[in-house]
Amino acid sequence: MKQQKMNMNKDLQYERSRCTFDPVEVTYLFDGSPEKTKRRRDQEQYFLDDLALKENVAMKYKSHKEIYEDSLQIACNVLQKVRELQCSGKEDIDLLLHIFGARLGSALFEGGNPLVLHYAMFLPSILGQANSEQQAYWINRAWAGDVIGTYAQTELGHGTFLRGLETTATYDPETKEFVLNSPTLTSYKWWPGGLGHTANHAIVVAQLYTQGECRGIHLFVVQLRDVETHEPLKGIIIGEIGTKLGMNGVNNGFLGFRDFRIPRENMLMKNSKVLEDGTYIKSMNDKLTYGTMVFVRVMLLQDLLHYLMKAVTIAVRYSVVRRQGQINPEQPEVQILDYVTQQHKIFPHIATCFAIKVTASWVWDMYNTVQSQLHQADYEKLPELHSLSCCLKAVVSADTAAGIEQLRLSCGGHGYMTASNLPGLYGLATAVCTYEGENTVLLLQTARYLVKSWKQAMNGEPLPDSVEYLNEAAKGVKHRRWSNDLECLIDAYDAVAAGSIRLAAEHLDRRIRDGVPMEEAWNQTGTELTQCAEAHARVFMVKTFAKAVKQLNSKSEEFRQVMFQLCELYIVYWALRNVGNFLRVSIDFFRN
Amino acid sequence: MKQQKMNMNKDLQYERSRCTFDPVEVTYLFDGSPEKTKRRRDQEQYFLDDLALKENVAMKYKSHKEIYEDSLQIACNVLQKVRELQCSGKEDIDLLLHIFGARLGSALFEGGNPLVLHYAMFLPSILGQANSEQQAYWINRAWAGDVIGTYAQTELGHGTFLRGLETTATYDPETKEFVLNSPTLTSYKWWPGGLGHTANHAIVVAQLYTQGECRGIHLFVVQLRDVETHEPLKGIIIGEIGTKLGMNGVNNGFLGFRDFRIPRENMLMKNSKVLEDGTYIKSMNDKLTYGTMVFVRVMLLQDLLHYLMKAVTIAVRYSVVRRQGQINPEQPEVQILDYVTQQHKIFPHIATCFAIKVTASWVWDMYNTVQSQLHQADYEKLPELHSLSCCLKAVVSADTAAGIEQLRLSCGGHGYMTASNLPGLYGLATAVCTYEGENTVLLLQTARYLVKSWKQAMNGEPLPDSVEYLNEAAKGVKHRRWSNDLECLIDAYDAVAAGSIRLAAEHLDRRIRDGVPMEEAWNQTGTELTQCAEAHARVFMVKTFAKAVKQLNSKSEEFRQVMFQLCELYIVYWALRNVGNFLRVSIDFFRN
Repeated sequence: MKQQKMNMNKDLQYERSRCTFDPVEVTYLFDGSPEKTKRRRDQEQYFLDDLALKENVAMKYKSHKEIYEDSLQIACNVLQKVRELQCSGKEDIDLLLHIFGARLGSALFEGGNPLVLHYAMFLPSILGQANSEQQAYWINRAWAGDVIGTYAQTELGHGTFLRGLETTATYDPETKEFVLNSPTLTSYKWWPGGLGHTANHAIVVAQLYTQGECRGIHLFVVQLRDVETHEPLKGIIIGEIGTKLGMNGVNNGFLGFRDFRIPRENMLMKNSKVLEDGTYIKSMNDKLTYGTMVFVRVMLLQDLLHYLMKAVTIAVRYSVVRRQGQINPEQPEVQILDYVTQQHKIFPHIATCFAIKVTASWVWDMYNTVQSQLHQADYEKLPELHSLSCCLKAVVSADTAAGIEQLRLSCGGHGYMTASNLPGLYGLATAVCTYEGENTVLLLQTARYLVKSWKQAMNGEPLPDSVEYLNEAAKGVKHRRWSNDLECLIDAYDAVAAGSIRLAAEHLDRRIRDGVPMEEAWNQTGTELTQCAEAHARVFMVKTFAKAVKQLNSKSEEFRQVMFQLCELYIVYWALRNVGNFLRVSIDFFRN
Repeated sequence: MKQQKMNMNKDLQYERSRCTFDPVEVTYLFDGSPEKTKRRRDQEQYFLDDLALKENVAMKYKSHKEIYEDSLQIACNVLQKVRELQCSGKEDIDLLLHIFGARLGSALFEGGNPLVLHYAMFLPSILGQANSEQQAYWINRAWAGDVIGTYAQTELGHGTFLRGLETTATYDPETKEFVLNSPTLTSYKWWPGGLGHTANHAIVVAQLYTQGECRGIHLFVVQLRDVETHEPLKGIIIGEIGTKLGMNGVNNGFLGFRDFRIPRENMLMKNSKVLEDGTYIKSMNDKLTYGTMVFVRVMLLQDLLHYLMKAVTIAVRYSVVRRQGQINPEQPEVQILDYVTQQHKIFPHIATCFAIKVTASWVWDMYNTVQSQLHQADYEKLPELHSLSCCLKAVVSADTAAGIEQLRLSCGGHGYMTASNLPGLYGLATAVCTYEGENTVLLLQTARYLVKSWKQAMNGEPLPDSVEYLNEAAKGVKHRRWSNDLECLIDAYDAVAAGSIRLAAEHLDRRIRDGVPMEEAWNQTGTELTQCAEAHARVFMVKTFAKAVKQLNSKSEEFRQVMFQLCELYIVYWALRNVGNFLRVSIDFFRN
């Protein structure tokens, strides 16, 4: 460590020496506590110091095949080390999340992790959707690695619209088996990670047919390959889908079925069931599956945060070290961070990291609250949580991807090189805009909740916290006079969000009144609806950030000062980015 | 062709059947004439039908080394075919431009062309900067391929700021040689295409020292590798810089010199000279080198146009063929192009293609006019052309890169796959934001011209066409009443651009009046300055587009109608994207 410090670039050293507070405060803030920081560092050292893992260099120079082989080798090495930790009792609950998430995972797996779906989707599906006999059968086998699974839902022709999935599982009471088929080219499973060459089993999502009727989509555990030879079983058509913008080690695959039979016991039957004679018993509760989707989106906020933190750190350091051009022709070339245009490209993304951090923590707490309420059959907060998780995933992924790209461009030609790690981070972040709910689709889901909330507000009904501002807007409450403080700007954000929601609701109503069918009117109002969901996410982030700064538990006045400045920057930056809406929607507000 | 049509997707066939005009009109518009369309198609067929070139598949599956080897093989095959064309007298002047530009080049060279700088920079530098003896010596050797050159200007630590280049060429009158040196790590040449393993010569840009004085940067032809063994010569340190976001077949390299000697005759001496005794004779004319930079930027507009055209074609076709989700639950899944949100993502970029096309053609004509004036020592229009080429390169590259990325995201998961070609197109387009003048730097160059023009307008001096709108703004001329037609919106664009320029000029002046030194005041006004250059580029594109539509030479009323709609979409889209400035700056205008 000492050696490193001595060789440190002088410009970097100087900038660091000017920090007004102890930077470890930021570290603790992001980790949660000094203890968690220590634990994280121990874990990182344990994994990253390992020689076999260290040799994972220059992945980008390799062929697609080599990238996969190396990624699989790394995945096996990492699991070996996880097991060692488990045996020595040092494992903690966060560890697997870090390894499969962005923080440690993206450092360990430059090309992506071909086993990620085994742990992130296959095992959780068994735990959540299988009955106890099924769990007894599968869990140990999967945990031991005899069964390597993936999760096969998306098809070549079907992603967003789940009901449109075409793969069929038809129950045959004669043999007490399901017969799986891929009736069309578009029905082939497409995308599952690890499916290409890694997994020997999959959870398959298929339309269940029994007693001549379609019962909608259900989950089945399906063996795909021989456990010894790893050859695909007869009736299984399987392969890899090809290269992508990023994550080429994930080994995404395709999968088709030709009259492929599995035992009745392989349908996951914790909720719905098919009896031996083919009788279908419907699930008692649909809402419980909501929880998993929300959980994944909440986790994605953490991933995105780590991608953006890495990118902004790289860009800031580069801008300190890089000297280019002169401001004063009498002086030497300046650090490019001295250019106001460069600061404008970089600083807002530092602020955004803190905004995402506090938002993600807030939503994680809310998720845990709602989870414990669900166990007491209290579903009241579920719609609010669902609507928040949708728009936040969309806005945070879009901000992060665009932010990383701007940061990459701010590093000039060097940002174009993969050695900067910026192209790789972009590949990871932009993928989140599409998977686990395409962003536009998610914004429209939130918009549905917002339009409904607006109507409730107009009827004077009470609303949950995150949309309470609609009540004031509906009542036409005038806000305080325009002034230069943050509270006033936050009120303006409220007014913009409420105004956008009102506008979308009114446009929708007008179209319906004009005789446009409801569904088509919804489609025609798509732009206004997505925009109001974005405005809602933004005001939520702005308020959460401001509240967190107010409640900041630090003895350092200087640190609190910098945090306040970052919050102010975030709030002003996004108001300016969207100044048209502030001028249009809050015109009444500014006239006050 | 018939076979193809029979197998065409039904949705695609249906959409095409609904076109109100003959689509070949668009083809002729983009090519320039029916004859040029035919010639282009013949060329494409000639190159793309070639078997050896066809085998260039699946580049993305290969290792970095294989990508380079394959790219070099393709480059040699292409050159062979170019020579055959030359021998048969079928070559035309556009051919090389197409092969090295985006249209044919990006189809032929998936990984990039390692010989591109030999033709695009080495040969033109010899032609433009060498005296006639030097041309006699080098041109034939380079054309025959005995000499393969590149152009080595950028250094590891020096890109934008040319005067900061560190490589030295010190004249030694004893031996009548220049001694080349790389005095620091940051002085190593970094980026030149083909330098890694391909070129055996380079034009090297270095600080000339003679008779103890630094004379600024000059150009030198330097042999780097043995022509027979291809080994680096003694005193040459050379290699490849590594993998990048895109163009990995271009073989970008680094280069250092240790007391490397070249004969005096290897300095390109068309303009400045060093005599045998070391006497330095200064160039008579600096302005002529301007021309090359402008030429490259004008060519880049064409490249960007082709990237965006390809991307928008892919996204439109995908959105027609892809069916996902329902608008009316009674109906089958819809083509995703039926979603208003999808149209909002795609249609503006169709309009942008036409806007770029007419702008690029206009600037190309202006370039040719100015070139012929330059030959008569008439430099009047050069500053205007330079300022236009700077801001247009910046705005068009930023629009194209962001557009391709939005189009890629509009194709969901399939857009993430390299098979969609969208990640590759993005890699090519985003690079243009950085090379040949980083966008922010270019915008600031235009801003300097605009601030000067604003002051001239305030003094009542006449201004060139592209900034004439400043005259009216300076005089405070009121525009026509607000109405819903395009002319009125175009007036608003004028007002926004003029208002942005005035704002930047006033902020700059105020800072200087407040005692901030000129250079630092310029830096502090960086954001306003880049924004006014963007607004200037936009109003120029808007007006050029509107004028081109008005002058459109087509008998088809329907085609003219569609072109008008595209122009309207472009104008309304960018006004809405920037609605804050329209509301702020043109508030007087709207009040009229």
